[in-house]
Amino acid sequence: MTAADHRAATRTTLTDVATLAGVTPGTASKALNGRGKLRPETRQRVLDAARRLDFRPNQLAQSLISGRTWTVGLITTDGIGRFATPVLLGAEDALGTGEISVLLCDTRGDAIREQHYLRTLAARRIDGIIVTGRRTDPRPPLAGSTDVPTVYAFAPSTDPDGINVVSDDRQGTQLAIGHLTGLGRRNIAHVTGPAHHAAATDRAAHTTHWLAAAGLPLATGRVQHGEWSEAWGRQAVRGVLATAPDTDAIFCGNDQIARGVTDALRESGRRVPDDIAVVGYDNWDTMALASRPPLTSVDMNLTEIGRLAALKLLEAIDGRPDPGTHRTPCRLVVRDST
Amino acid sequence: MTAADHRAATRTTLTDVATLAGVTPGTASKALNGRGKLRPETRQRVLDAARRLDFRPNQLAQSLISGRTWTVGLITTDGIGRFATPVLLGAEDALGTGEISVLLCDTRGDAIREQHYLRTLAARRIDGIIVTGRRTDPRPPLAGSTDVPTVYAFAPSTDPDGINVVSDDRQGTQLAIGHLTGLGRRNIAHVTGPAHHAAATDRAAHTTHWLAAAGLPLATGRVQHGEWSEAWGRQAVRGVLATAPDTDAIFCGNDQIARGVTDALRESGRRVPDDIAVVGYDNWDTMALASRPPLTSVDMNLTEIGRLAALKLLEAIDGRPDPGTHRTPCRLVVRDST
Repeated sequence: MTAADHRAATRTTLTDVATLAGVTPGTASKALNGRGKLRPETRQRVLDAARRLDFRPNQLAQSLISGRTWTVGLITTDGIGRFATPVLLGAEDALGTGEISVLLCDTRGDAIREQHYLRTLAARRIDGIIVTGRRTDPRPPLAGSTDVPTVYAFAPSTDPDGINVVSDDRQGTQLAIGHLTGLGRRNIAHVTGPAHHAAATDRAAHTTHWLAAAGLPLATGRVQHGEWSEAWGRQAVRGVLATAPDTDAIFCGNDQIARGVTDALRESGRRVPDDIAVVGYDNWDTMALASRPPLTSVDMNLTEIGRLAALKLLEAIDGRPDPGTHRTPCRLVVRDST
Repeated sequence: MTAADHRAATRTTLTDVATLAGVTPGTASKALNGRGKLRPETRQRVLDAARRLDFRPNQLAQSLISGRTWTVGLITTDGIGRFATPVLLGAEDALGTGEISVLLCDTRGDAIREQHYLRTLAARRIDGIIVTGRRTDPRPPLAGSTDVPTVYAFAPSTDPDGINVVSDDRQGTQLAIGHLTGLGRRNIAHVTGPAHHAAATDRAAHTTHWLAAAGLPLATGRVQHGEWSEAWGRQAVRGVLATAPDTDAIFCGNDQIARGVTDALRESGRRVPDDIAVVGYDNWDTMALASRPPLTSVDMNLTEIGRLAALKLLEAIDGRPDPGTHRTPCRLVVRDST
């Protein structure tokens, strides 16, 4: 006998409850679901019997009747890492602990796996899908998901009718530049990730915009693009100091770059923040706190993105979709690097 | 009309398939499930109709009949972070992409949330549970989960009849010490995490054991316990060099400590690995690769822990539980710090 057989054999059924209460299974069902016309004492007898027998209604059967499974699929396209995790936690909060369950699907960037998961989710009659990933570049919509409400979180979809919830990089960049200019810095360089990543090019364009709005050029005359790594941050410092020796602040596209920048500045004899202030992006505590000094950084409030995505999904499941791109604001966490 | 209503209204039913094939719903069901005696041409006609109508059998209904839901709960007790993620990926691989789905439950170390999730999982009639977390200290078994097959992965249970899959820290430590002594190092210090964490005390005991087996004492006469942080690694170096200036290797309890150790050694003028070799633990690429030089580190093969946990769970669901503590071997990843 397998464990499933054993549980099936020992599990209390609606018939057990009805027998103990001295009613038909139909009456017991009405009493437990609060439907139909029953005398209060009958309903109470059924509820007491259910409690005594520790009867737990079978959610599978309820879902067959209601057409809802109280289950959403969470598809992450490229790993369950630093970006997807807080999005997932925020979504879980908004869906209510255990009220709606999350089926996790990690496609690892593989289109075949994505198709496979979509078929599985359809067979399970999930109520909706949240799609996330670590790239902010718009992605094609899920193929064949048109009949299931879907929300794209952090990584938006190219579908003009899609529901997207993303970080407001424009406002996040404004916080960083406003902070640095507010501290009196005037020669601000920007060191960021690869030019083929939207997260890099978007923040670079916003940086140039907000500097121009403050009447300032980029200290080095151009954006320094490279890898999202500490090694690139260290390397970039040499170029920045050679091109613009009077640089008094470096705004970095992520915290790994900012940490590399900070290390290289210290090792070249520049004091952070006295000589050169440094601001990172992501507020990744492992990087920001271990840095010497700890990093001021833009926090994208990823948990809030997950929470809002879940709320937008619930609206869509409820027949009230709200298409478009919804942006959640960032906040600046100030530490000793500025 | 909600999205769920819409989908219910437009979804192909078994009756639609039967009507198109010109058979009764009972015959259509037999044909699709491969049961009963049917003429081959009848079966083919039903299969053709199902294909033309894009009929997808309702897994909820199938689960009600079979008693299996092909769903397992994955409970992480303290976040979906660096440790739980690879365990989860390994479990997902072993469960077969989409064959068995994973319901994710993050209890955030909260007993109330854990109880809530257990009730939800019971109502959903899941087939089994995998429990994981980031602490290797044995934890009490899940309360009230006795009727559902459960496997503890990475974080074992105190239940003597529990099924645990954990990392073999004894063998992992042997790899590190054997590597260092093989390189001719004789004065080896050990810098690790807090004395109230099993991951720290276990590795410390194994380190002392393997050094003794090689006829060596700890270079500093005792284990240096502190935080799992770079700051502690940097701080510990001062104590190690003051107590035992001839130290020629430092084995660290995790990669963050090892990175701090490496930074402090470099800044105090010691060459790594020429003067002092450094080995970390976890093989966390963010830390190990950004370190200067990149770190040699013990990799716990967390994905393999998840994979084995899933296999042990499938055995238990199948009525063949294999209680006890199963250990998966570590491997040493050699880089420039040794």
